[in-house]
Amino acid sequence: MTGIAVIGCGRIGRMHAANVARHPRARLVAVYDVVDKLSNSVAEETGARAAASLDDVLGAPDVDALLVASLTETHAELIERGAKAGKAVLCEKPIDLDIKRVNRCAEAIKGLDVPIQIGFNRRFDPGHSAAHAAAAAGEIGDLHQVIITSRDPGMPSRDYIAHAGGLLRDMTIHDFDMARFMLMEEPVEVFAVAQAMIDPELGRELDDVDTAMIVLRTDSGRMCCINNSRASVYGYDQRVELMGTRGMLISGNRRPHELRRFDGDGTAVGLPYLNFFVERYAEAFMNELGAFIDAVEGRSPVAVGFEDGRKALLLAEAAYRSLASGRAVKLSELAGA
Amino acid sequence: MTGIAVIGCGRIGRMHAANVARHPRARLVAVYDVVDKLSNSVAEETGARAAASLDDVLGAPDVDALLVASLTETHAELIERGAKAGKAVLCEKPIDLDIKRVNRCAEAIKGLDVPIQIGFNRRFDPGHSAAHAAAAAGEIGDLHQVIITSRDPGMPSRDYIAHAGGLLRDMTIHDFDMARFMLMEEPVEVFAVAQAMIDPELGRELDDVDTAMIVLRTDSGRMCCINNSRASVYGYDQRVELMGTRGMLISGNRRPHELRRFDGDGTAVGLPYLNFFVERYAEAFMNELGAFIDAVEGRSPVAVGFEDGRKALLLAEAAYRSLASGRAVKLSELAGA
Amino acid sequence: MTGIAVIGCGRIGRMHAANVARHPRARLVAVYDVVDKLSNSVAEETGARAAASLDDVLGAPDVDALLVASLTETHAELIERGAKAGKAVLCEKPIDLDIKRVNRCAEAIKGLDVPIQIGFNRRFDPGHSAAHAAAAAGEIGDLHQVIITSRDPGMPSRDYIAHAGGLLRDMTIHDFDMARFMLMEEPVEVFAVAQAMIDPELGRELDDVDTAMIVLRTDSGRMCCINNSRASVYGYDQRVELMGTRGMLISGNRRPHELRRFDGDGTAVGLPYLNFFVERYAEAFMNELGAFIDAVEGRSPVAVGFEDGRKALLLAEAAYRSLASGRAVKLSELAGA
Amino acid sequence: MTGIAVIGCGRIGRMHAANVARHPRARLVAVYDVVDKLSNSVAEETGARAAASLDDVLGAPDVDALLVASLTETHAELIERGAKAGKAVLCEKPIDLDIKRVNRCAEAIKGLDVPIQIGFNRRFDPGHSAAHAAAAAGEIGDLHQVIITSRDPGMPSRDYIAHAGGLLRDMTIHDFDMARFMLMEEPVEVFAVAQAMIDPELGRELDDVDTAMIVLRTDSGRMCCINNSRASVYGYDQRVELMGTRGMLISGNRRPHELRRFDGDGTAVGLPYLNFFVERYAEAFMNELGAFIDAVEGRSPVAVGFEDGRKALLLAEAAYRSLASGRAVKLSELAGA
Repeated sequence: MTGIAVIGCGRIGRMHAANVARHPRARLVAVYDVVDKLSNSVAEETGARAAASLDDVLGAPDVDALLVASLTETHAELIERGAKAGKAVLCEKPIDLDIKRVNRCAEAIKGLDVPIQIGFNRRFDPGHSAAHAAAAAGEIGDLHQVIITSRDPGMPSRDYIAHAGGLLRDMTIHDFDMARFMLMEEPVEVFAVAQAMIDPELGRELDDVDTAMIVLRTDSGRMCCINNSRASVYGYDQRVELMGTRGMLISGNRRPHELRRFDGDGTAVGLPYLNFFVERYAEAFMNELGAFIDAVEGRSPVAVGFEDGRKALLLAEAAYRSLASGRAVKLSELAGA
Repeated sequence: MTGIAVIGCGRIGRMHAANVARHPRARLVAVYDVVDKLSNSVAEETGARAAASLDDVLGAPDVDALLVASLTETHAELIERGAKAGKAVLCEKPIDLDIKRVNRCAEAIKGLDVPIQIGFNRRFDPGHSAAHAAAAAGEIGDLHQVIITSRDPGMPSRDYIAHAGGLLRDMTIHDFDMARFMLMEEPVEVFAVAQAMIDPELGRELDDVDTAMIVLRTDSGRMCCINNSRASVYGYDQRVELMGTRGMLISGNRRPHELRRFDGDGTAVGLPYLNFFVERYAEAFMNELGAFIDAVEGRSPVAVGFEDGRKALLLAEAAYRSLASGRAVKLSELAGA
Repeated sequence: MTGIAVIGCGRIGRMHAANVARHPRARLVAVYDVVDKLSNSVAEETGARAAASLDDVLGAPDVDALLVASLTETHAELIERGAKAGKAVLCEKPIDLDIKRVNRCAEAIKGLDVPIQIGFNRRFDPGHSAAHAAAAAGEIGDLHQVIITSRDPGMPSRDYIAHAGGLLRDMTIHDFDMARFMLMEEPVEVFAVAQAMIDPELGRELDDVDTAMIVLRTDSGRMCCINNSRASVYGYDQRVELMGTRGMLISGNRRPHELRRFDGDGTAVGLPYLNFFVERYAEAFMNELGAFIDAVEGRSPVAVGFEDGRKALLLAEAAYRSLASGRAVKLSELAGA
Repeated sequence: MTGIAVIGCGRIGRMHAANVARHPRARLVAVYDVVDKLSNSVAEETGARAAASLDDVLGAPDVDALLVASLTETHAELIERGAKAGKAVLCEKPIDLDIKRVNRCAEAIKGLDVPIQIGFNRRFDPGHSAAHAAAAAGEIGDLHQVIITSRDPGMPSRDYIAHAGGLLRDMTIHDFDMARFMLMEEPVEVFAVAQAMIDPELGRELDDVDTAMIVLRTDSGRMCCINNSRASVYGYDQRVELMGTRGMLISGNRRPHELRRFDGDGTAVGLPYLNFFVERYAEAFMNELGAFIDAVEGRSPVAVGFEDGRKALLLAEAAYRSLASGRAVKLSELAGA
């Protein structure tokens, strides 16, 4: 049994705490939030202890690992402090909004022999991971194209957007990781178009975008297109398509159930897709946790490491440079980044 | 080139005439209807001659074959006269509503060596025929169950129903043939339930039903269920499911095109199905004609013969006896029929 | 929190115990099996106490309710003893294989005011229950036809079959309940065909069947066809189709995930369906438990009561009589049963 | 009836001739090819006369319109000569591989009041045109993203490729037109990545590519991604996806029929898609012809005009510049083109 402390008891932290609590190989030892009320509430729900301070958590011998679900700006520090305290860390994405901070964090933990996993949960989605596995096994021959459709079901609040670091660092970051996962080669070039199409005013005020298309290219010529939107009225749209010389794979959307309606207006009418990531990626979050426990227990290497988190952020950086310049940006241009 | 005369220039005859006219191996030589206006109109559309009389057609040396699409009560006589005049006959279903008349017709044409094909066009539908071929080739192992869904898109007129001979002889007759085609063994027992559910009043007045379920059983134990309705608001519903020891085959419905709509009310919303048999079975009618021409030209035996027409009607007879008696009726009970 | 004891710690009991253990409104108080080893093992897994005897369970004040998952022959007695001890009972189907024993049980518990729920879990499947709700709300107009496809993924062991009471009481019993649930009227007549198609030898030895089609009819004319097979190689096949004057609903199968493969052999190739009931109806079992807790807590009436269990068995009885007689059997003929 | 002469009797010309011959409002008056054998053969098949020369066709009073299906290098001249002879022209794409030649052609026909239609047949595909119509009618709100998947079923011959003018002018030209049709605004910027992935050697020898991703952007911010491949082993892959503020539309692929197979290896297995454009766009070609006849008969304006042909080629030009420069190319940069 791996003893885990969840840091950050907001919406995501609460979900992670519940997952840890019911995972057969984990024990939810402690929860912590800077807001006492939140940690107390999650502690009560799960039976874990509400830690009084971060030091309390880091010093606790029954805590083998941290699950970091606090605000983005605390991630890098928590990774550093956790690693130095000898705790394994599963940290929500992104590591930081600033690539320089990420690089300093990489320096700080260099040589520390603890598993650090970044929360790119979608790699653990049963459909997406089966697609990856099939392509990796050569079932579709040589891979040529990847199309990632990733559309959130609705605009987040202005407040959320103001602190999220921009669409490409906040939302597309998952798709950059998915692109790397599926391409099975490093992208060397990024081209992006993006605009505030859904809420132009918000775009002007917060200088953010809500709709994007991004093309990635690897050295061997593999191509990937990411389609993003903040507001898909038909539900959370999460598809991955892999096209190769011997076939195609599509990992499709899921509905709450498989009832279909047929009438004079239409046939085979399914429900809107599962609303958002908590529902759509419920299995993925549990599988992610299982993979982390495997790494903590030394059964397998870390599935999605710190460097994966850094590289996804680098792709976001490149995409932003492409947006600014209107040209494809080579990753090598960010070498100093 | 096979010279064909179409007898009967109503809706179905008109469609057949157009098919013959554009078939690469057929020539539409003549058309005939007791109503001059109809034959003239179809003649004008197709460039064929409007025959003055049936004798005219039967005596014409350029007429190799008749395509009989006239009223049901004329079918048996036209088969007899055509066959005696040495013409091949493709006759619309049913041969007659009265099994005794069908039997007399069988006697009358015994020994006449002309191809007689009955218009069970659905056997020639690309999907249904591929299902049959796959099952016949053993792709699903031993066949155990057949489910035939067959629902018309709307109630026909009272006048039509009054002369149609009852749901089971008029509409289900196609499904009885499909059952024989797919079961690949003769049904030995029939059980039917049926009721005027859509239009109870019409049921009372015309003593007909509009909704039915019929179970057929073969000697080896294969089972078939036919589901009928006169009024499917989502379009013409024509499905065949074959279940065997090694798999299942479903020949599904077709839509006018493959546009799907996704919004807050539903996902993957397709159009209602193709409205009715002229659209749904357009390819089947052409393929049926091709098979008939093959038989006329001696390239292949008749695909759906007179006896197939008779046996489908026998199944309808058995189903009506089952309705009346509330028990399964053995085909052997109709031996004298 | 409702205190629940699970009786019977075989495969199903173990699953129920795990469900109770993680249900937010239930406490798994005790588990019991005549085989100590089994109860100890489940107790260890769940943290519940292994009861020393049934009396121990029945006398325990912290046990509000029994979840009976023991052998079928013990069901009726456990319902009686539980009810008399003032415990609510959620009992796996069937109540008993012998309708007379069921009737005696009904007598025995008459007037005892405790919730008795029968384990027809499929009513709680999200897709099936949404289909029922939509039809009950009139979304497809007047209901005319129900088609229930229910095929197990493979033959059970000879030993299982020898004690299961026959296909129609063991497996179809779920479909009889589903038919009643979806028809929303009592069936008044049953016709069945069935045969040992998959394993004829087993059929001869154990006098059982493995393949069946059953037609039910209600007084107003609604029709239902159940298609059963013990061995569906493409996975557990669980579909319900409802056809009405204003539309159709199909509650379809589920796959482990939504990956589709496209290559030269086929397109849109999905995985085989979820293998069996534990996977396919995982949500249904949890929802069933939630509904039971609602009833125990007095929030809502029992969703599937003792009488539902009895009526499903009556339909099985009628179906067996139909098999024996080759005719449709009226439920009224079983009035003395 | 519109009298039509088909110029060019290769594979496409033969198909067009057959379409004209069976179109109810057209008469196939003449066919012409520089290779006598070809025109004679098509003439024989269709009953049309084989014209002795182009002048013969242009001077014939019964020829109202030309359908130009000859080699690309003859298109511009035939448009000019036809228009000057007062004949309407339906010309296969592209107008020419050289944008300068296209511009000269535009000059040459300026002021000539005859319908000139370019053969972008896909606009007339029932699914694609319904998608366009629905989006144009506002059914998905404001349009934000278009994804066009367009993959041919296999590499053409080296000889074909050597004369085709490059993937983007030969194959993607259809998708550029589809993008303009679906975006309902002019693209102002193009970014392309492309490579010889399927046949790198061919790529080196003929300096062509076989795999591409192209992103287009309109002034208001609408985005379009085109995915191209020369070799899709699962059949001709032709999909269009439109995403807007109120929903999404996907016009999907078609199969020869709707048979699905279910077994231990997979479920809902459909046939590979229709092999190539002659099959997939059979209805589209007929509808295109109908629209052309409408224009010739003055019933409606030309649906896809000369300028549409020119603009698709401009997009190809921009895409090639993007390939060469690695940056997004503005259409305004080609102003002098």
